[in-house]
Amino acid sequence: MKRIGSKVLMLCTAMGFGLSAAGTALGAETLDDVMKRRGLTDKDILAAAKTYVPTGKRDEYIAFSSGGQSGQLIVYGIPSMRILKYVAVFTPEPWQGYGFDDESKAVLAQGRINGKDINFGDTHHPAISETNGVYDGQFLFINDKNNPRIAVVDLHDFETKQIVVNPIMKSDHGGAFVTPNTEYVIEASQYAAPFENGFVPLEQFNEKYRGAVTYWKFNRETGRIVPEESFSVELPPYSQDLSDFGKGPSDGWSFTNSFCSERYVGGIERGRPPFEAGCSQKDTDFFHMVNWRKAAELVKAGKAKQINGHNVITMDTSVAEGILFLVPEPKSPHGMDVSPDGKFMIVSGKLDSHTYVYSFDKLMGLINAKDYAGKDPYGIPILDLKKSLHTQVQVGLGPLHTQYDSKPCVAYTSIYVDSQVTKWDYCEGKVLDKISIHYNIGHLMTMEGDSVTPQGKYLVSLNKLAIDRFNPVGPLHPQNHQLIDISGDKMQLLYDMPLPLGEPHYAVAIAADKLKPGIRYKSGWNSREDKRSAFRTRPGREKVERKDGVVHVYGTTIRSHITPEIIEVEEGDTVSVHMTNLERAEDETHGFAIYGTNVNLSLEPGKTASATFKAERAGVFPYYCTEFCSALHLEMQGYLLVKPKGYQATAAKGAEGTVYSKADYDKQHKTNVETQAVIDSVVAYITARNYQDFAPVVALVEDATDQLNFAADAKKKSDEFAAKEDWQNATLWAGQWWQYQVKAADIGLRAKTFLDQNGAKVVK
Amino acid sequence: MKRIGSKVLMLCTAMGFGLSAAGTALGAETLDDVMKRRGLTDKDILAAAKTYVPTGKRDEYIAFSSGGQSGQLIVYGIPSMRILKYVAVFTPEPWQGYGFDDESKAVLAQGRINGKDINFGDTHHPAISETNGVYDGQFLFINDKNNPRIAVVDLHDFETKQIVVNPIMKSDHGGAFVTPNTEYVIEASQYAAPFENGFVPLEQFNEKYRGAVTYWKFNRETGRIVPEESFSVELPPYSQDLSDFGKGPSDGWSFTNSFCSERYVGGIERGRPPFEAGCSQKDTDFFHMVNWRKAAELVKAGKAKQINGHNVITMDTSVAEGILFLVPEPKSPHGMDVSPDGKFMIVSGKLDSHTYVYSFDKLMGLINAKDYAGKDPYGIPILDLKKSLHTQVQVGLGPLHTQYDSKPCVAYTSIYVDSQVTKWDYCEGKVLDKISIHYNIGHLMTMEGDSVTPQGKYLVSLNKLAIDRFNPVGPLHPQNHQLIDISGDKMQLLYDMPLPLGEPHYAVAIAADKLKPGIRYKSGWNSREDKRSAFRTRPGREKVERKDGVVHVYGTTIRSHITPEIIEVEEGDTVSVHMTNLERAEDETHGFAIYGTNVNLSLEPGKTASATFKAERAGVFPYYCTEFCSALHLEMQGYLLVKPKGYQATAAKGAEGTVYSKADYDKQHKTNVETQAVIDSVVAYITARNYQDFAPVVALVEDATDQLNFAADAKKKSDEFAAKEDWQNATLWAGQWWQYQVKAADIGLRAKTFLDQNGAKVVK
Repeated sequence: MKRIGSKVLMLCTAMGFGLSAAGTALGAETLDDVMKRRGLTDKDILAAAKTYVPTGKRDEYIAFSSGGQSGQLIVYGIPSMRILKYVAVFTPEPWQGYGFDDESKAVLAQGRINGKDINFGDTHHPAISETNGVYDGQFLFINDKNNPRIAVVDLHDFETKQIVVNPIMKSDHGGAFVTPNTEYVIEASQYAAPFENGFVPLEQFNEKYRGAVTYWKFNRETGRIVPEESFSVELPPYSQDLSDFGKGPSDGWSFTNSFCSERYVGGIERGRPPFEAGCSQKDTDFFHMVNWRKAAELVKAGKAKQINGHNVITMDTSVAEGILFLVPEPKSPHGMDVSPDGKFMIVSGKLDSHTYVYSFDKLMGLINAKDYAGKDPYGIPILDLKKSLHTQVQVGLGPLHTQYDSKPCVAYTSIYVDSQVTKWDYCEGKVLDKISIHYNIGHLMTMEGDSVTPQGKYLVSLNKLAIDRFNPVGPLHPQNHQLIDISGDKMQLLYDMPLPLGEPHYAVAIAADKLKPGIRYKSGWNSREDKRSAFRTRPGREKVERKDGVVHVYGTTIRSHITPEIIEVEEGDTVSVHMTNLERAEDETHGFAIYGTNVNLSLEPGKTASATFKAERAGVFPYYCTEFCSALHLEMQGYLLVKPKGYQATAAKGAEGTVYSKADYDKQHKTNVETQAVIDSVVAYITARNYQDFAPVVALVEDATDQLNFAADAKKKSDEFAAKEDWQNATLWAGQWWQYQVKAADIGLRAKTFLDQNGAKVVK
Repeated sequence: MKRIGSKVLMLCTAMGFGLSAAGTALGAETLDDVMKRRGLTDKDILAAAKTYVPTGKRDEYIAFSSGGQSGQLIVYGIPSMRILKYVAVFTPEPWQGYGFDDESKAVLAQGRINGKDINFGDTHHPAISETNGVYDGQFLFINDKNNPRIAVVDLHDFETKQIVVNPIMKSDHGGAFVTPNTEYVIEASQYAAPFENGFVPLEQFNEKYRGAVTYWKFNRETGRIVPEESFSVELPPYSQDLSDFGKGPSDGWSFTNSFCSERYVGGIERGRPPFEAGCSQKDTDFFHMVNWRKAAELVKAGKAKQINGHNVITMDTSVAEGILFLVPEPKSPHGMDVSPDGKFMIVSGKLDSHTYVYSFDKLMGLINAKDYAGKDPYGIPILDLKKSLHTQVQVGLGPLHTQYDSKPCVAYTSIYVDSQVTKWDYCEGKVLDKISIHYNIGHLMTMEGDSVTPQGKYLVSLNKLAIDRFNPVGPLHPQNHQLIDISGDKMQLLYDMPLPLGEPHYAVAIAADKLKPGIRYKSGWNSREDKRSAFRTRPGREKVERKDGVVHVYGTTIRSHITPEIIEVEEGDTVSVHMTNLERAEDETHGFAIYGTNVNLSLEPGKTASATFKAERAGVFPYYCTEFCSALHLEMQGYLLVKPKGYQATAAKGAEGTVYSKADYDKQHKTNVETQAVIDSVVAYITARNYQDFAPVVALVEDATDQLNFAADAKKKSDEFAAKEDWQNATLWAGQWWQYQVKAADIGLRAKTFLDQNGAKVVK
């Protein structure tokens, strides 16, 4: 029979052969064996080699994809196609505490519509902030089609910081896209509706229903949109669709396409043909050109009308001031893509087989010459299609969206009905290559493909149907993003990636090294407001305070306890718990959840988050850390006791569950002394080596030092009780001292392993 | 200038060179080139080859992982480690319509605690239903630690069907696990609390706070848990942890371990050592052995006490009847794993370096001989540790959870502090191999590793920290599941998989071919109740009906329109929209969202879902399909018009947005006739081949036939209006006729491509 529960033995084991026995040898199977067994071709192996990212290595690009009706933002790596994070944007998500802590509830509350909480969104188009037309990796904007809103995500911590509600629209689509220096974020409406919030009968569709584009002013210093400096331009009730901003020569203009310029109103239940028929009858729709820079000046000059407290430039003003023009475009388009040099606008209509390449020079020539082909029913000048085209290219059935390559003049267009991607030359107007995808591609994405410096290399096909591509998981299928190698002349399909939650519509990808996210917050940080929290708590200063009828709990979390461990309130109290995570170590997030209350906080290192709730009924409510943070994570718990009103405690003290003697104390003390010797040997091992050359080890040593300081504090308490011959408390504090030793040992061993595996050298 | 907007040309293009031009040639880069460029080793390529799943191929195993504080269930494929689906369980999730349609709101409402909506869960342990101890792939059960609940997911459609709230616990942990024939699902408490819901002071912890195990009766016919046939066994206030059911010789028993058998109550803010110290002081805790089969008989015999309307067998009864025993186990354990043959129970304590292998034979010998080592403070017999052990094995620092291999006697144990997996022999009691993971592994999973027929091959390490493994995404890191090849003698690390949402705790994997999920529902199906919906609607029977003060809208969705397209109600009305998806084609899901109302339905083929809301204020509320379902998806829209109370419509009819002439009609008609000729040629192409040998093509032909029938209906309408010389309606219906033709062509072309790529043959 081996010795049971020997604490010292345990550590010695780890120091000895435990680590050295780690197996890394390969199995006997060769690559050929594996290919044969799994039925893989040479092409498959090449694709695998192009996408596989070994442990600890990084992806080249980071993609940000909308999450559709999930209301979220999806972050994944390219070429591995591994999803790294779902960022909660419009929908509450408890893992992130989003919509569960007071701080993020305040962000969601900004997104209320007519005072109503809206707890989801239909995210469509994310946009990364730009500097001089180049992605700078600082911020991300994303729209909600269903409840016209724009959210701001800070890429320093990948958190949603702000939601703004469009004051005049009832749905949107053509956003978010940014100006080359991110002065403005565009949002275009989708389904025409009255600007006012009241009822207007559909009989007044032509007269009272309207579209619009909104230009949201972004303040880069504060990282927030400034609604009062934002404005909209009124548009006809054509269903506006996608947008893009000009760049280079076309900077100062924005472009927004449309469908249903027929202004058809359906009513199949009244015997009318459905919208789909009436909205696709004409051969062409219109795209809108807006001189946004001049529009901003008009607003400053007081020429905007106030609607719902918002600056709106009416169509009459736009026409009078010459800032709005219409250009015929292929019917039912879904893509408005300005070329990297800003000279061309490429549009595809899903019911046409061509992409149309417009010349900005020609468009401006027509505008400057006031050479109009006519006016629409609202008096907006229409430019002639033929006169404004650079070329048209027959790319396939159902062309949709175009993205650019690093190679000049090379573009890729998604072909919905054919389920293909067409590579083509928009200068020469010729098709270069085609590849089949699976199935029915919507948007596509090249690397930094809508910036002024597209990077080529990879293309992702955002397919709308997966059908048979994956193992079946019921009637509701995942989406499928297919990775395509575009580095050569011929496109090569590399990888099928299921999207397990939400239907992405649009995605943008940035070179991974441009992102510099933080790994911790300054201690006591309110991450949603980006400032020190008024409720932050320092270690040892935890307290419970009744103020203005609210019981405020100022608490902390650290491996492996929550302070306070017992919270007592009265039935009917409003309780506001503020938790500060005292950790500094990377990835040492704690959670905090209370039974039956909907309280769940995600406390990343340094963060302070709060939860306010009503203690509706008397009872016992366990709480605990919801992130497996340490060996004693399960013991990281506490009790919220809600006492009946006026409850008087009896004097009786509960019996100890277990009583400890001097012998228990001596045994624990001996263990700790022996454990310390082991730790000292690990410390000696580390400090004898050039550990300071390894940043991760420096962080581990810092963390281990913290733990050893905590151990010293606990030892002191244990010693004091031992001096008083209080063996109960002396033993328990000695146990706590040992807990800190275990944490220090865990960290120290991880540091030692890192040094061993990364060729650290003995220094003198 | 090329011909613009030619509808027929578009289809001809696709028929001609459009498809044949699809590029599949490889780039010039060789495997060596790629390895060099990407810095990959031979070992990396081998790992890539073992995990890469080419497009259209399937994974071997499907893993079901808990989603922690996300409240969801995560489904992924092995070996590709691609996430296939997040199944919404305890948290509302709009993509799935979960918590947004009336049917799923009713499921979530079952999970209310004391009448309060609980909108998240902390899912920990999923379990797949078993038949004779073998996974059968029919149902999945998962627990919520924070609000003690169990949910039932039907693996036919991967939807959550039921939530049951534990009537006596205030937190849980040791569930869900099932009996070998899924008669019962076990749920064990975690943090001790009073069974009653009121306040009990902590001073009465030893006397009034209790743990328990609940045995939920499952009815496989109805696919639901039957609360009234379920029962609990009262346990001491030791923090119960994980559970497992016996099998084979140990069938009839359940095993539940514990920590904090010290019954320590913390209070760091009162100067006491924290829970973590007081709960880890003793060298051993206890696991509980319960004879659940005899317990069930006792309940039937009326020996249970009713607490909160639930059957509870008290400790006194358990002791008197001999159904409850305690066995010392290594301190702070986190795993209770019965061997596949049911002869051994393996337990690891995180603060011991050994795994303990208990012999069921020896345990029963002691019980039968009434050979007790003592009794705990509640009178429960304690069996002697040494007498019940088969062996102890020193596996490393912080052992936690054990899973089994297909090879006899081979097990794998996760080692938390060492960050390793140890492979060992539990018959012989020796270590076989170790592998390092990154970092701090919690549970681990082998394929069907807790069934009676574990399959070996792969092991997944569910790590608690990712730290530096992935591209950084801010202070909150993804989790990391590492795939390990266990087919050879030495374990080999294959793949790092980030978990982008939630913190998984436990996972189970089943051979993929055992799952047989459906791809559509019977038409008009209420999927949450698994029966025809009372609100189902057949095509042509759409209607709006006011009944009992509620406006019921019976609508349908099909590519590409919603019927009705205009819904009129009055301010203050309660509106209940019932949508039936008429589609039968795989993956043809439609969505239905209304501006500003929190309405979002996910309508998989055949499903009927409903949303009930109050039309609080007059206004115009666009609605639309939220799934990109077809080329004309954006046009799949409508308007909810909420009229002010007592609003009287004026007689004035709105002007048509666009007026069509006979010339327009003739043009459209000509296009349609030409298009039909193209479609006929596609049909001829398909039917000349052995398409009936290809199930996916048969499905496509069926779908295309539907579309052509719809086209014929629209043609008939167009013809009728043309006969009346109503060119407006004749043109529009001709447009709709063409829309159906485009859908048929889309499907037909996909079928043609499939036949071309899969070697179909001409059958004269």
